[in-house]
Amino acid sequence: MRFTVTYRVRAANRAEALARAEGIALEQTVEIPRAVVPAGYVAEEIVGRIEEIGQLAEGVFQARISYSPDSAGTEMTQFLNVVFGNSSIQQGIRVTGIEPGATMEARLPGPRFGIGGIRARADRPRGGLIAPVLKPMGQPVAAFAALAADCVRGGADIVKEDHGLAGQPTAPFRARVEAVAAAVAKTNAEEGRSALYFPNLSGPAEEIEANLRFARDAGAGGILVMPGLFGFGMVQRIARDASLDLPVMTHPAFLGPYVLAPDTGIDHGVLFGTIQRIAGADISVFPNVGGRFGFSAQECAQIAAACRGTGPGRAMLPSPGGGMSVERAADMVRMYGQDVVYLLGGSLLADPPNIAAAVAAMRAAVDAAEQP
Amino acid sequence: MRFTVTYRVRAANRAEALARAEGIALEQTVEIPRAVVPAGYVAEEIVGRIEEIGQLAEGVFQARISYSPDSAGTEMTQFLNVVFGNSSIQQGIRVTGIEPGATMEARLPGPRFGIGGIRARADRPRGGLIAPVLKPMGQPVAAFAALAADCVRGGADIVKEDHGLAGQPTAPFRARVEAVAAAVAKTNAEEGRSALYFPNLSGPAEEIEANLRFARDAGAGGILVMPGLFGFGMVQRIARDASLDLPVMTHPAFLGPYVLAPDTGIDHGVLFGTIQRIAGADISVFPNVGGRFGFSAQECAQIAAACRGTGPGRAMLPSPGGGMSVERAADMVRMYGQDVVYLLGGSLLADPPNIAAAVAAMRAAVDAAEQP
Repeated sequence: MRFTVTYRVRAANRAEALARAEGIALEQTVEIPRAVVPAGYVAEEIVGRIEEIGQLAEGVFQARISYSPDSAGTEMTQFLNVVFGNSSIQQGIRVTGIEPGATMEARLPGPRFGIGGIRARADRPRGGLIAPVLKPMGQPVAAFAALAADCVRGGADIVKEDHGLAGQPTAPFRARVEAVAAAVAKTNAEEGRSALYFPNLSGPAEEIEANLRFARDAGAGGILVMPGLFGFGMVQRIARDASLDLPVMTHPAFLGPYVLAPDTGIDHGVLFGTIQRIAGADISVFPNVGGRFGFSAQECAQIAAACRGTGPGRAMLPSPGGGMSVERAADMVRMYGQDVVYLLGGSLLADPPNIAAAVAAMRAAVDAAEQP
Repeated sequence: MRFTVTYRVRAANRAEALARAEGIALEQTVEIPRAVVPAGYVAEEIVGRIEEIGQLAEGVFQARISYSPDSAGTEMTQFLNVVFGNSSIQQGIRVTGIEPGATMEARLPGPRFGIGGIRARADRPRGGLIAPVLKPMGQPVAAFAALAADCVRGGADIVKEDHGLAGQPTAPFRARVEAVAAAVAKTNAEEGRSALYFPNLSGPAEEIEANLRFARDAGAGGILVMPGLFGFGMVQRIARDASLDLPVMTHPAFLGPYVLAPDTGIDHGVLFGTIQRIAGADISVFPNVGGRFGFSAQECAQIAAACRGTGPGRAMLPSPGGGMSVERAADMVRMYGQDVVYLLGGSLLADPPNIAAAVAAMRAAVDAAEQP
């Protein structure tokens, strides 16, 4: 079964839209002119096939193009390459939908854990999850460990590292992961909690495999991955590994340009929902409406819908970052419902000695809003 | 020594520009409000520092912000994360320059081979290099091997795989690399050539290390990498590995959205020149003016200048793809000079049995244009 990508295409008229769609179908597969395509299997199976063209508005068309699973193989990286590799460099083409179809869904089955799996591990059967963030970079290992313990005491479901924590000399990856995981485990035991610690995957490319195993062995409850910097193939690699058994939370760093221009790139819901889910993320972080980034309520709703709707794969948790506070909790619950992970960032750190109380206040505010 | 990033920032006036620059300096490092930043090392060393703000035009400012090497560590991935991780998601911020400075240059020394190293390996001491491309996907291994042999006979300096050749069932990575490398070696020996074969790096994330060694052992003369899908950390990882000793050619797949919108993302020269060079690419492929993509002559010239100018690291080869033909050779030589790799794509494949003659004609056209 072929997979299908929907592109929004700028074109003066239907003939031009058809020509552009034909260009995409070739560009994303054989990358040679139609006249030169070998007859038989390559022409009939491999070349992209225009399934449908429709007009959306003056000068704006929609093209649905199907591709052979043979063109993508079994790798997320090559799947994305077929979806949008070279066409990403063309003006006036935006990916607005991806339907992997049964064959690719079998090859890329998506989240290992999904909403149910994360809830089970965090022992939070219902209600929004809260995830305070360990930062800022530049602090010593002990400061992060202490901060993490306080977050667990306050009732964090997930203790997430800032995506900027990497191999800084003051808190290198392994020393930090070991100390923070131990602090979280100890506090979980003392307080009867099940908070999950998500370190930020980092390290040179040739050490990533070892760092993943290190994180698992140290007791990490999941891992934060930046697909904009490590590639979506890294998400797939972790998600499908039963021996690693680590939930994946993805972070949007370096992915901004894909969504910011309306006529190019990839729709918000597709990039922060559909693609994350196909790759196998369990939780997708994105900039919340009302925070420092300019995402609209509609764009955030599109992301949440793509994370939680019917397929592909298990439903996953949207994780709006920024713009959350005790005062806004009721608005957020109205907007996102219960299957959501709220990131709690800088505002929590105003008074580090009282962070446990601040996390607890956020928990109470979310609980109150959910039971009106 | 700190490294410095230049951002072009949209702002109504100088005060707003200063506020946005202050926002970037915090966002890219500590990611918390200034009032909450721990005093001492974090506040003084880690937080980004505004070095300079100037107005470029009505509503457009330029901010130079310096960062501590401690924030980036030794990894290309984290270096890029500090340069533009979260700020990539903001409207109206574009990276227009990166100066790594002595400390980061020592950690990220850039191309292992550079222009001189590639020329020595390809035995082409002067003149533009030509690189026909093996495609289309969907053909069997033997077809690629035969095509590669013909390209060598015609005088190819580099035989490059299409970036879409991955793990397709008709020509899986290892079987293909082994057969094509053998065909190129045999033809090199028969014809007294030194053509370099660059397979396209592919495979699941956990097999990339093994695939790199496989390519080297099979006799690949270099490797094609898509940093938009595998990350720039992968380029660094290959470039700094003396035991691998493989030149890196980078391909722009999936990177388009970074350059297409003028007010966000990253300037053409920075993305396809400076960053490639800092990561350690020896050859940077980008869409040529006059081809299927809309890059202007000025944008292509900016890329070529960034690839070949003074530092950081060794000068590397720009590789314009598309728009090259016997008829345009003189124009291209006037535009790019001699330190360049011309990709020869679909037009060569119009008549596969005569591809050696088509490559030879291109070689002759380039030579003639260079010695007028």
